[in-house]
Amino acid sequence: MKKKDKIPGPTISRLPIYFRCLTEMKNNNISVVSSDELATMAGVKASQFRKDMSYFGEFGIQGLGYPVVHLMERITTIMQLDKVHKVALAGIGNLGLALAKYNGFSKWNFQIHYLYDSDPGIIGTVINDIVVDDIDKIPEKLDVSIGILTVPREFAQEAADKLINSGVKLLLNFTATFLNVPSDVVVRNVDLTHELAILTYHLESKQAE
Amino acid sequence: MKKKDKIPGPTISRLPIYFRCLTEMKNNNISVVSSDELATMAGVKASQFRKDMSYFGEFGIQGLGYPVVHLMERITTIMQLDKVHKVALAGIGNLGLALAKYNGFSKWNFQIHYLYDSDPGIIGTVINDIVVDDIDKIPEKLDVSIGILTVPREFAQEAADKLINSGVKLLLNFTATFLNVPSDVVVRNVDLTHELAILTYHLESKQAE
Repeated sequence: MKKKDKIPGPTISRLPIYFRCLTEMKNNNISVVSSDELATMAGVKASQFRKDMSYFGEFGIQGLGYPVVHLMERITTIMQLDKVHKVALAGIGNLGLALAKYNGFSKWNFQIHYLYDSDPGIIGTVINDIVVDDIDKIPEKLDVSIGILTVPREFAQEAADKLINSGVKLLLNFTATFLNVPSDVVVRNVDLTHELAILTYHLESKQAE
Repeated sequence: MKKKDKIPGPTISRLPIYFRCLTEMKNNNISVVSSDELATMAGVKASQFRKDMSYFGEFGIQGLGYPVVHLMERITTIMQLDKVHKVALAGIGNLGLALAKYNGFSKWNFQIHYLYDSDPGIIGTVINDIVVDDIDKIPEKLDVSIGILTVPREFAQEAADKLINSGVKLLLNFTATFLNVPSDVVVRNVDLTHELAILTYHLESKQAE
């Protein structure tokens, strides 16, 4: 297996997609899958899938393919999906509220444990059995793997700093801002407007052809 | 400029990030930016940025860099951000409601015009001045560029089919399911659980080293 930091980001981003494909195959009692079949389902080229797998020392069996359950277990280990990861969410606006109520996270062992806001009208309210706490009272050491930022963009850096000061090293950032973080903190930016823009690129493509 | 379908997906996905970087630079009265500066801000390698730009025939000025406003205009045209794009959203659950109320879309000329649901208790309610309509009564020809799917996963394919039957060619799919769509329909899957899994991959990386 290659050293982790040599594995390209896009390969890592595709692992959850492969995992979801494999889960569907397992549910359909498929035990072995060809790279062609899995790649088609995942929306990538078969050569891309095989290259992605090779980073983790996974090679298909010639003429047969990849064993579904084995590959699921490998990806589970690689992405640490076999452990429960606690999550803290800062910013109980519309999106924060939706994520706090979202039941999809727990299927992959992600559990939102803490909710934070700065609005006195929101602090103290209860969402899914979790009391919203004051973001200024985050404990010195927060026992979570991941922080989710859904605060308004003007408070993004401040809220990120507070989570980082409490030891959070991984941030999922929905605030549509660039965060300044120490080198040992990993930020993943999700901008839903960007997703729409990527789609309209294809619209132009179709009209031009 | 290369033929559009030859441009790699990851390049297209980075264009909105570059656009956001350039916007910040423009707001700070920066008129020319080096590939190093822009790449650092966007979180990619400078060589990657230059390669991405080359697909669109954009080359920096030797020893100077890229003109900020010109490049913004180019990306605006490439991604059609200079036009208003109407959006229909199907599924007024927690996430659908959050997206229907999200004010970030309009800054990039995306306007949610139609809201659909199948629940009689939700049909007829008003969100941001839009009345939620019955998804079974989508007009035969819907004048939107993009459909957003936030229905429960068991209704995902059905809701997608209804939008596609009304002429929608671009779908942003939040349902964590694979959709079967005609070849002229482009689907972009956004799975928020995947985003967390990609982060915990990095957690393992850190612990292992």
